[in-house]
Amino acid sequence: MEVKDKVIGVLGGMGPAAGVDLVSKLIDQTDARTDHEHLPVALLNYPERIIDRSTFLFGETDLNPALAMADILRQLESVGATVAGIPCNTAHAPAILDVIQEELDRTGHSIRIIHMIEETAMFMREHMPQVETVGTLSTLAVYDLGLHRKPLEAAGFDVVVPEARIKEELVNRTIFDTEFGLKAQTNPVTDKAKHNLVTAIDHLVERGADAVVLGCTELPLAPMVEERSDVLLVDPAEILARALIRETYPEALRPLARHYAAHVPSTP
Amino acid sequence: MEVKDKVIGVLGGMGPAAGVDLVSKLIDQTDARTDHEHLPVALLNYPERIIDRSTFLFGETDLNPALAMADILRQLESVGATVAGIPCNTAHAPAILDVIQEELDRTGHSIRIIHMIEETAMFMREHMPQVETVGTLSTLAVYDLGLHRKPLEAAGFDVVVPEARIKEELVNRTIFDTEFGLKAQTNPVTDKAKHNLVTAIDHLVERGADAVVLGCTELPLAPMVEERSDVLLVDPAEILARALIRETYPEALRPLARHYAAHVPSTP
Repeated sequence: MEVKDKVIGVLGGMGPAAGVDLVSKLIDQTDARTDHEHLPVALLNYPERIIDRSTFLFGETDLNPALAMADILRQLESVGATVAGIPCNTAHAPAILDVIQEELDRTGHSIRIIHMIEETAMFMREHMPQVETVGTLSTLAVYDLGLHRKPLEAAGFDVVVPEARIKEELVNRTIFDTEFGLKAQTNPVTDKAKHNLVTAIDHLVERGADAVVLGCTELPLAPMVEERSDVLLVDPAEILARALIRETYPEALRPLARHYAAHVPSTP
Repeated sequence: MEVKDKVIGVLGGMGPAAGVDLVSKLIDQTDARTDHEHLPVALLNYPERIIDRSTFLFGETDLNPALAMADILRQLESVGATVAGIPCNTAHAPAILDVIQEELDRTGHSIRIIHMIEETAMFMREHMPQVETVGTLSTLAVYDLGLHRKPLEAAGFDVVVPEARIKEELVNRTIFDTEFGLKAQTNPVTDKAKHNLVTAIDHLVERGADAVVLGCTELPLAPMVEERSDVLLVDPAEILARALIRETYPEALRPLARHYAAHVPSTP
């Protein structure tokens, strides 16, 4: 029996459902028809150890979640992980991610983080040649830092974001609200959460978006993809899953199931 | 911040989707509205290291999957797990489970396995007082060993199983078939798999079942629960998720969402 000794690590817990979702996507993106053809995956979902990323980035605490995250990455390495994905867009802020990397380097650990946001811009550049303008949905912290905007612009896209009120009330709040938000309820997602996100996507389309990046790992948990055909919805977690497989077992990578043709409105 | 230092371990990979499903159910059964209220969970999905359980139980190999499974349980313990669930009914055969326990004892490891099948019988006894006759769906190996039948009978239920042809062609094959089976395809589950399972459930209802145990962790992945109201479908993975929370963070256990009243046909 072939030994698959490289483990794919998932640093989860931010939120827990996003960790599960990434493992699910790793399974979906693997070309396998029996248990044994599937890839070794370790998921550590330790939500209470990791301070909320936005709370830290907005200066409401001095505790950088990077230290706990580096610790969990070392645990992933201890069970065999050679690469890891972090299913949390906000955690990719340099103030967090750079500190994680320094902490891993300092302690002599070589587990390699695959950068979800950079992978997303590269994937879109490769597979969505017709897209010109990209809208993004994310936490306020990610908007403020331009975490998606910068790599998308570097890849040659125009980037549009929602107006301030929509960013705050329809996007950020739909992620965090403890009554109707996605971190509170994903099974099922509340109607209010779905409605808010659909409204925010409409708004981005009005601003010219041909594609919208669901740039918070909670967002793809809301079943919006089936609900519209006028804009391409891009899921960074799915792209990250494919990148993690490519970096470990490229021969097991499933052919792209979706055709990423852009839904560019025909010009008159 | 309260420290949740007991990790809930999931020994997955049998199949990989069943491991993900158990973590998902751990999240669903936790009473939480923010990331930080969720529980620490470690999932190790190493499918290729664990010989198929049925293959071993039918004597087609001398390699007992128990040794690899004990090794993964030790890894779960090394990242903090104090209890573990094994989302694979067939792996609960004494020829496997007893050897895992001996191997853990021999090497001085104290991680505690929560027994999914015994928990299922206990849960049904407590929450389904009106049920008299229970049908079971499982792999052939689990049928042959009476893995569900024995604890259910000990709990006072009458147990019915399908006739031989249905066991083999409609249940076992729907789990394992590399074209239409659940181990090959769960996203989406094939129509043939769904049809076969619904037919097998009909057959168990004809044999008098008031409730049917979906006694292979691949089975609840097929969306059958919504499809009928004449019989109670019982998901051992959901019951295992609740038992794992009860044994670690009982205060975080969500109240039972479903009312488990039996669908006993009214007598004339």
